[in-house]
Amino acid sequence: MTTLVFGHKSPDTDSTASPLIWAWFLSHHEPGAAEARLLGTPNTEAQFVLKRWGFEEPAHILDVEDGQPVVIVDTNNPAELPANINRADVRAIIDHHKLVPGIETKTPIEVTIRPVACTATLLWQLMGGHAGHAPDAIKGLALSAILSDTLEFRSPTTTRIDRQIAEHLAGELGVDIPSYAAEMFAAKSDVSAYSEAELLRMDSKEYNVDGVEFRVSVLETVSPQQILARKDALVAEMPKVAAEDGAQQVLLFVIDILREEATLLVPNELTKKVAEASFGATVTGDTVVLPGILSRKKQIIPALKVA
Amino acid sequence: MTTLVFGHKSPDTDSTASPLIWAWFLSHHEPGAAEARLLGTPNTEAQFVLKRWGFEEPAHILDVEDGQPVVIVDTNNPAELPANINRADVRAIIDHHKLVPGIETKTPIEVTIRPVACTATLLWQLMGGHAGHAPDAIKGLALSAILSDTLEFRSPTTTRIDRQIAEHLAGELGVDIPSYAAEMFAAKSDVSAYSEAELLRMDSKEYNVDGVEFRVSVLETVSPQQILARKDALVAEMPKVAAEDGAQQVLLFVIDILREEATLLVPNELTKKVAEASFGATVTGDTVVLPGILSRKKQIIPALKVA
Repeated sequence: MTTLVFGHKSPDTDSTASPLIWAWFLSHHEPGAAEARLLGTPNTEAQFVLKRWGFEEPAHILDVEDGQPVVIVDTNNPAELPANINRADVRAIIDHHKLVPGIETKTPIEVTIRPVACTATLLWQLMGGHAGHAPDAIKGLALSAILSDTLEFRSPTTTRIDRQIAEHLAGELGVDIPSYAAEMFAAKSDVSAYSEAELLRMDSKEYNVDGVEFRVSVLETVSPQQILARKDALVAEMPKVAAEDGAQQVLLFVIDILREEATLLVPNELTKKVAEASFGATVTGDTVVLPGILSRKKQIIPALKVA
Repeated sequence: MTTLVFGHKSPDTDSTASPLIWAWFLSHHEPGAAEARLLGTPNTEAQFVLKRWGFEEPAHILDVEDGQPVVIVDTNNPAELPANINRADVRAIIDHHKLVPGIETKTPIEVTIRPVACTATLLWQLMGGHAGHAPDAIKGLALSAILSDTLEFRSPTTTRIDRQIAEHLAGELGVDIPSYAAEMFAAKSDVSAYSEAELLRMDSKEYNVDGVEFRVSVLETVSPQQILARKDALVAEMPKVAAEDGAQQVLLFVIDILREEATLLVPNELTKKVAEASFGATVTGDTVVLPGILSRKKQIIPALKVA
């Protein structure tokens, strides 16, 4: 049976590209062995990247059958995976996020988690010498995923190896990193087609902080004003999104990639307390700028406190 | 702070040797960086191996402090780890068992699980070129762990890479594998000092099968008659051990390493049904011989059925 390779339910560039890369690798060994799937609609940056490197959007799936062989990339969290995941035949997990309890396998499988910025970096390492056989289109996906997850090496999650692989691939492909990254970030920043609810859920994870359930959403952009112009509508939508998703509050961080700062929307006292307790910020209005904050994983989540 | 490296609560040779190997590796990079610990008393084979290669028994710990940096080897199951494990600072998990939900980390860490027979095999692969710097004593531990977990390559869990590394190490050390393995297995088979309850818990894991909680115990030996002579006393102790550990039944498989067969003790109807449903065995007395069954992980657990 063909192995299905997929990432999480809110496909960004890494979660769109990495299944295609790994399915290529598995099929390179054994033709037809694996195919990429998506668990949701790719964001505008991922769509740009697919088109740029000549890929059709992979087929979407809503769930997996009992016993279906799968490889999970870019997450190990069952909340971000199909409901039936623990009845599938999970063959491998390749990820760069914190370990959360949830996935259970019947036999020992391959699990590789490393604190690198991007899953594609880890895939490239795991492929070893085989990576040299990858066609340009696959190399282009890996380069794009690394530039996306590292915000062109600006994010503090960036490791030496992320940068090394991206620069090596850019050299092989003859891609100028600054101008290509600028194109990618422009695509990511074009969020005009999304509703407020979609924006709040686009790149969002739930975390329990001191007993309070938060939906922690980030929007990485080179045009923060495009999002902040919709501030009132975003704030108005927050209670509904939170209630539907079983959270008490949505925290929306608008990440300005070029200025390397985050703007947190502060619609109420709870969010104000979070901003002050977590980031030592002084909040006077309905937004607060947090200089240097770019990474949810490395800077926002570890800092979050309610009081 | 010194990183503590440990395996599971019932230290066999792999769970005793692997912490010492990995602590050596971490300290090879940064002197004093790591130390091995034990979560229980090593079995007789592990004690023989420590002595053979000139090691003192590592210090025992009962629990870990909040924030203590640790590396976990040879398990990822919180039930086999200190109660406070999720409040420690888990830096890495290196294992060859199925993934079970339980460990949760605050940030991304290094997790490496591979379906090889022995953790020490995986450690040797992860060390790459650094493994060449290991002193003979560390090489001896790795060789011993691989011979133990593979039952000298007899177990169906044995992979090409387990065998390759063990044979390479034996060559470097000038160790004759058959005679050294025979010494190890003789040490493991000398269980005269243990009580029946200790034997039932010595190499034992709990599994829920069709809603029934079992303690699945194996005793690998080259002298099965030494254990089977205590059959009545072992059976008499089973209900007490099961009750204390929250299981309904202990299944004791006496693994004859040389004849490559298991003898299951069959004290009651439930165990008889398990033997028949799981292994297609015909049970007529109070034991049943299961030819070719050597591995709990690969042959016993995947087969277990109540009816």
